[in-house]
Amino acid sequence: MSYSVAVVGATGAVGSTMIASLQEQKFPVSQLHLLATARSAGSEYGWNGQTLKVQDIESFDWTGVQVALFAGGEIASERLVPKAKAAGAISIDNSASFRMHADVPLVVPEVNPEALRQHQKVVANPNCSTIQMVAALKPFLDLGLKRVTVSTYQSVSGTGKDAIEELENLTRGWASGQAVGHKVYPAPIAFNCLPQIGSFGEDGFTGEERKMMEETRKILDLPELRISATCVRVPVFYGHSESVHIELDKPCSVAEAEERLARMPGVQVQKAGPGPTPLQAAHQDDVLVGRVRVDPSVENGLQFWVVADNLRKGAASNAVQIACKMLEMGLL
Amino acid sequence: MSYSVAVVGATGAVGSTMIASLQEQKFPVSQLHLLATARSAGSEYGWNGQTLKVQDIESFDWTGVQVALFAGGEIASERLVPKAKAAGAISIDNSASFRMHADVPLVVPEVNPEALRQHQKVVANPNCSTIQMVAALKPFLDLGLKRVTVSTYQSVSGTGKDAIEELENLTRGWASGQAVGHKVYPAPIAFNCLPQIGSFGEDGFTGEERKMMEETRKILDLPELRISATCVRVPVFYGHSESVHIELDKPCSVAEAEERLARMPGVQVQKAGPGPTPLQAAHQDDVLVGRVRVDPSVENGLQFWVVADNLRKGAASNAVQIACKMLEMGLL
Repeated sequence: MSYSVAVVGATGAVGSTMIASLQEQKFPVSQLHLLATARSAGSEYGWNGQTLKVQDIESFDWTGVQVALFAGGEIASERLVPKAKAAGAISIDNSASFRMHADVPLVVPEVNPEALRQHQKVVANPNCSTIQMVAALKPFLDLGLKRVTVSTYQSVSGTGKDAIEELENLTRGWASGQAVGHKVYPAPIAFNCLPQIGSFGEDGFTGEERKMMEETRKILDLPELRISATCVRVPVFYGHSESVHIELDKPCSVAEAEERLARMPGVQVQKAGPGPTPLQAAHQDDVLVGRVRVDPSVENGLQFWVVADNLRKGAASNAVQIACKMLEMGLL
Repeated sequence: MSYSVAVVGATGAVGSTMIASLQEQKFPVSQLHLLATARSAGSEYGWNGQTLKVQDIESFDWTGVQVALFAGGEIASERLVPKAKAAGAISIDNSASFRMHADVPLVVPEVNPEALRQHQKVVANPNCSTIQMVAALKPFLDLGLKRVTVSTYQSVSGTGKDAIEELENLTRGWASGQAVGHKVYPAPIAFNCLPQIGSFGEDGFTGEERKMMEETRKILDLPELRISATCVRVPVFYGHSESVHIELDKPCSVAEAEERLARMPGVQVQKAGPGPTPLQAAHQDDVLVGRVRVDPSVENGLQFWVVADNLRKGAASNAVQIACKMLEMGLL
C-alpha cells in the first residue's frame, strides 16, 4: 500500500528536507502534495522523477490525504492540523503546539515508539535539540537516570531560512568590509554566541530551554526527572552540538557507556579522536556521540558530546521516521 | 617610582595586548623592552609617544629589568623565566609552565591577591577560561562551593594569531566560493564547533579542561573542589563564553546572586535581556555575567553565563593587573 502525503511548509528549511527524507527513507507515497502560503505557491520541486508544484495551503482540499507532515510553524499547525484530522489524515507535526498535549504522542522512534499506539491522529515531533539528546540518554535509562544538565551549541538553520541568510549576509559583509545589519536575531550572530533561544520565562529560562526540559521528561516517561538546560545559538549553519552531564543511580564505566551507545539504533559513537563536529553531522540522519568520560565531580556521573543535523534527525527525518515506524507498527 | 618592563612575545596576540594594557592601566613604566624571536625582531610599535623596536630575545641583556611579562609560550617561558629571575626581575608568566608549581602564586587580582605575597620572583597568570570563571565563582565562596561544571565556547584568538588568520581565511574562502585548507585546528573551525582544546589525557579530558579544573582549585584554595569542564572551540574571534553550573551548601536566590556578582570588582552583571555575548565583551577588561538563574535540577544550584575578552581579562590585562596589584601591595 502507498499513501497520499501532504507536506505543509514545503518551501521552508525543514519542509524541503522532509521532501528529501520521504524519498531517502522510501516511505511509500502514492501522491505528494506540497503546501505553502500563497507567497510560495507555484514554485516547483523535482521529486521521484516528477515535477511537483507547490500549492496554496488556503485553497487546498484535504480530502484523501492520509499522512500530513507539518513544518509550517505553530500558527499554521494550530489552524490546519484540525482540518487534516477532520479529513481523516494523521498529522506528524514539527511545531511545538501539540507536543505537551496529553493525548499527543511525542516520539523519537528509536526511543519511545510504543507511545505511537496512543495517537489520536496527531503525533508531535520533538524539538530539535531534545531529539538528539534523548537518543543519547535512552541507553542509560536502566541504570537510573537521576539528573541531566545540558549546554547547547545550536546552528542557525534551527531558526529557519531567514536565519541562514542572516548568517550568510553578515559573513559576506564581514569578508567584503561592509557593515550589514541583523534582524532575525537580537545581536549579530556572525563570530558571536547568543545565549538566548526563545523568550524568557519568569524563572529566567528561555522557551527552548523549557522545551528541552519538559519534552525530555515526556519522551522518557520520567515526569520527575531533574533536568536543566542552557541553549545557545552559535555561528554554525547546520548541526546542533550539546555538552551533556548525567547522573545515574548505578556506576557506568566509559567502555560500558560507549558500548551502550553503540548498540543504540541511530547513534554512532566516536570512541577516540577529537569528538564529532556539526560539520561531520550535517547531511546525515545519525546522532553522533563522542567525548564520553566519567564526570569526576559527582557520584555515578558521565558526560559526553552529542551532535546531529538539526534539520534531519532534529526535525525532518525524525518526522518521516515516525511515519515509517507507524507503518511498520500497523498504525497507518 | 617607575619600572623597567620587558614584554616577551611582544608581537603575538597576547603580547601586543599587554603593551596596550600597560598604558591603559597606567602602570609606571620607565623603559619598555619589546622582545620576540629573531623573525619578528626589528618591527616597530608606537607606545606612549615613542617608537619602540622589537628586540631579538636571544641577544637581550636582562640587566636592570624589574618586571617581565611573558607571553611567548611554554618553551620560551621555561627557558627565559630563569634568566629574568637571575637578573632580579619579577616574571608574570602567561604560559602554563609554572602555574601548578607550589611556590608560584596563580593569581586573579580580584580573587586571590594575597597569594602574591608568597611569590619567589615568579607569578603565573591563569588560563584564559579559568580567569573569567573564578571571577564569577568568588562571590559565592562563603556559601560553600560544592561543585562546578562548565561548558565553554572559546574563541580562536585563544590559540593565537595563526588561528585568527585561519578563521579569517576559511571564512573569506567560503564567501568567495574557494576551498581553503586548515592546519591550526584538526578540522575547519569556520561554521563549526570543535570539542577539543589541547591533547587528551587517559581520563578523556583535554589539556584545557584539566587546566580549568586544577587551576580553579588552586586559585580558590579549594584543593578538593568537585569540578568538571568541557572545552569547545567556536568560530568567534574574540571572547570566551561559559555556561556554568554551581552547587552550594546554602541556598542563594537569583536576586542575591546578582547582587553578590554586582559587588565583585571587575564583574558586570546583566540582570535582564538576552545575556552578554563575546562581541559585547571584546575589547574591554570586565567579566560579563548574565542568565543568572536557579538550577532547578539540584539543591542549592545556580547557573549562569560568563563572557570575557580572552586576550584581555583572560590574559594580557590580568597579567598587567597583577603587576599593578603587586605595586599597590608593595611587592615590586
